Amino acid sequence: MPKIQSPKGTRDFYPAEMAWHQHLMEMWRRVSIRNGFEQVDGPIFETLDLYKVKSGEGIVSELFSFRRENGKTDFAIRPEFTPTLARMVAQQANSLPKPIKWFCTPNFCRAERPQRGRLREFWQWNVDLLGLDSPAADAEVIFTLVDFLAECGLTKEQVKVKISHRDVVSEILGKLGVPADKRVDAFNLLDARDKMSPEDFTEAAGNLGMDPSKVQRFEEVCRRKYPAGDLDHLARSLAMDQAPADLAALDEQLAAFGIAEWCEYDLGIVRGLAYYTGTVFEVHETTGVERAVAGGGRYDKLIELFDGPPTPAIGFGMGDVVLTNLLHDKGLIPDNVMPRPDAFVFAASDDASAKVSGITAQLRRAGLHARMSYKTTRNVGKLLKDAQKARARFAVIVGDGIELKNLETGEQSAVELGELTQRLGG
Amino acid sequence: MPKIQSPKGTRDFYPAEMAWHQHLMEMWRRVSIRNGFEQVDGPIFETLDLYKVKSGEGIVSELFSFRRENGKTDFAIRPEFTPTLARMVAQQANSLPKPIKWFCTPNFCRAERPQRGRLREFWQWNVDLLGLDSPAADAEVIFTLVDFLAECGLTKEQVKVKISHRDVVSEILGKLGVPADKRVDAFNLLDARDKMSPEDFTEAAGNLGMDPSKVQRFEEVCRRKYPAGDLDHLARSLAMDQAPADLAALDEQLAAFGIAEWCEYDLGIVRGLAYYTGTVFEVHETTGVERAVAGGGRYDKLIELFDGPPTPAIGFGMGDVVLTNLLHDKGLIPDNVMPRPDAFVFAASDDASAKVSGITAQLRRAGLHARMSYKTTRNVGKLLKDAQKARARFAVIVGDGIELKNLETGEQSAVELGELTQRLGG
Repeated sequence: MPKIQSPKGTRDFYPAEMAWHQHLMEMWRRVSIRNGFEQVDGPIFETLDLYKVKSGEGIVSELFSFRRENGKTDFAIRPEFTPTLARMVAQQANSLPKPIKWFCTPNFCRAERPQRGRLREFWQWNVDLLGLDSPAADAEVIFTLVDFLAECGLTKEQVKVKISHRDVVSEILGKLGVPADKRVDAFNLLDARDKMSPEDFTEAAGNLGMDPSKVQRFEEVCRRKYPAGDLDHLARSLAMDQAPADLAALDEQLAAFGIAEWCEYDLGIVRGLAYYTGTVFEVHETTGVERAVAGGGRYDKLIELFDGPPTPAIGFGMGDVVLTNLLHDKGLIPDNVMPRPDAFVFAASDDASAKVSGITAQLRRAGLHARMSYKTTRNVGKLLKDAQKARARFAVIVGDGIELKNLETGEQSAVELGELTQRLGG
Repeated sequence: MPKIQSPKGTRDFYPAEMAWHQHLMEMWRRVSIRNGFEQVDGPIFETLDLYKVKSGEGIVSELFSFRRENGKTDFAIRPEFTPTLARMVAQQANSLPKPIKWFCTPNFCRAERPQRGRLREFWQWNVDLLGLDSPAADAEVIFTLVDFLAECGLTKEQVKVKISHRDVVSEILGKLGVPADKRVDAFNLLDARDKMSPEDFTEAAGNLGMDPSKVQRFEEVCRRKYPAGDLDHLARSLAMDQAPADLAALDEQLAAFGIAEWCEYDLGIVRGLAYYTGTVFEVHETTGVERAVAGGGRYDKLIELFDGPPTPAIGFGMGDVVLTNLLHDKGLIPDNVMPRPDAFVFAASDDASAKVSGITAQLRRAGLHARMSYKTTRNVGKLLKDAQKARARFAVIVGDGIELKNLETGEQSAVELGELTQRLGG
């Protein structure tokens, strides 16, 4: 074993792991494109200041940062894409056609303690729709997420998009006695409740203006789930005459996109981040054991924070580590996603061996995936086994003439050099 | 304009630039795979020590490095892939099937002054073949490079693979009076000669043991180019009875792979790096104005340097910046590589507008790239123009019924909802 190891919390992608990684990237890309999103990317590092705009000084300890330019500027490896996206949108705000529909699949680094579902380097699918402030935009982004989950083979019984809405929760908090200037504190409390004792929660809620009976009511409201497409249920439970207008409008759009059955309202979903402004959502396994598979929401004030014009926006992120764990648990990682050779070329005699590279080159030049044997044996049986092990569709056996063997059917026939490429479908 | 800019020497990839970037990545990938290479990748940062193994302390000032783990460990954003590759091979040396044929397309960062062809963040195609010490392996790697150049639309008149061989040059240096222990210095002098005055070069060469007449001879040998496939010419020029055996064996293999016409021998190619051991090569535009488009060579001692077993190896790297400049100059960047929508869906009446998202969702779920209009206008003429601007193949006009318009032929017909997906090829 070599002395120097890879850094803690990072991964080496050997061919088998890379094939899955690449497969996942291509699924993310395919689903994004068919949903009308355009791919973008930014630098692997940015100025440290860019990351403080949204997250404050608190983010710095989680970053891999470094000082350059004669000590005058701090930079950091990107821990997320949103600040880069906001910078890019702000820089070209006037020339970009609206709505802006962007996706990317970048890698990020965070200086966290590695644990299940969390590594120091990971990849994340980001999907953002900017320039539209409508429940239809929210639903289209959530549809894209569901379209991907279904593409992976996941079902609506296995995963759910849990949706809340900041304004709706804020309205409920108001009815429970929380004044407007304490609503953000209440969101943070809601976000932290799973890590608190009931006593601590009651005390903290009391400090926000809720009496004990209302704290209990608040807890109940946040714990209950309401299926999308049945807002009456939710309204009754919240003792309202009718469902909040924001949820009703979103509910209609989720139905129009045909994904109501994949979604449920869960007012306990907060997405701790202070910058969300309306709809927020997370994807969870229905058993609830893993971390959120994806999370996002509306962030209508963020582009302004980066000196851009007022720009409504909604988006989400999905990390590769939690998703891969989930797909693995559900048996949804395909067996072998390594590229499959069209042909495996070898010589049946020493005289023929000089022809192998030329024939292989001809096939490759025609766009065919062609491998060749590097062995000196001329034992056709052994070489055919190598061809099978390589998962090749055909073996090309070079002797005095050329024999083409279909490795699926076992069929074998002589073929002229000039027609070989065509016979292989090149 | 926002206050915070992107770091100097990095790029923002907006959709048009990203489409080309992605197109290039896919070309690199496609050519690698059809040549039998398997994709790998490693972490975006490694321990700083890993980069010193091959390059010494001198590399440190060119890196973006940072100290972590309570100040105990230095890391650096990767400036190249070879150390990671060597580490990965060394770690699994016993279990990896041979030959190892790997490629990757990672991004690298170097703290250099940005200039034409050199940025602080760039992407590079790396192709490596390990475990075979044969001219056939050298030729296969060079074939892969040529296969890619041809895939880009470049011709053998526009670019050449310039090949040298360390052992051959070393032998010539010996004949010119350079003792064995000064050969590496002579390689470095050769590499630096374009930046030196003739006087300084003559003096430096003299210090290596060459008298002035031999310096001139050395200069001539290194300046002259010899087409592959005509080694007699080279032998005569070098006053040898026959061509050096190493070059003769490689020449035969280049011909077997059918790429002799893309190659020429140029003994002035050195590839400054001390770790190359045999064949070295670079791709240059024949006009010679740009930097090398790609470079590589044999590095048979490197895996041992990383505590792996003795492992012969050959590989090359090609950066995206110089290549893109070259393809741009030659008019070989495709006009529009943005993904093209299959369908553009819009409503011809307010009544129909509620159906648009459901129809679009149905098409996307079937794998079709479907866009929809976000406008409130119902002016079919204007909306058809939007569909054309989006480069959609078909417009789906939703009114009382559905009309499908082929935007290439202008043909238009009514279609049932149930057959729409099929009509669009989904």
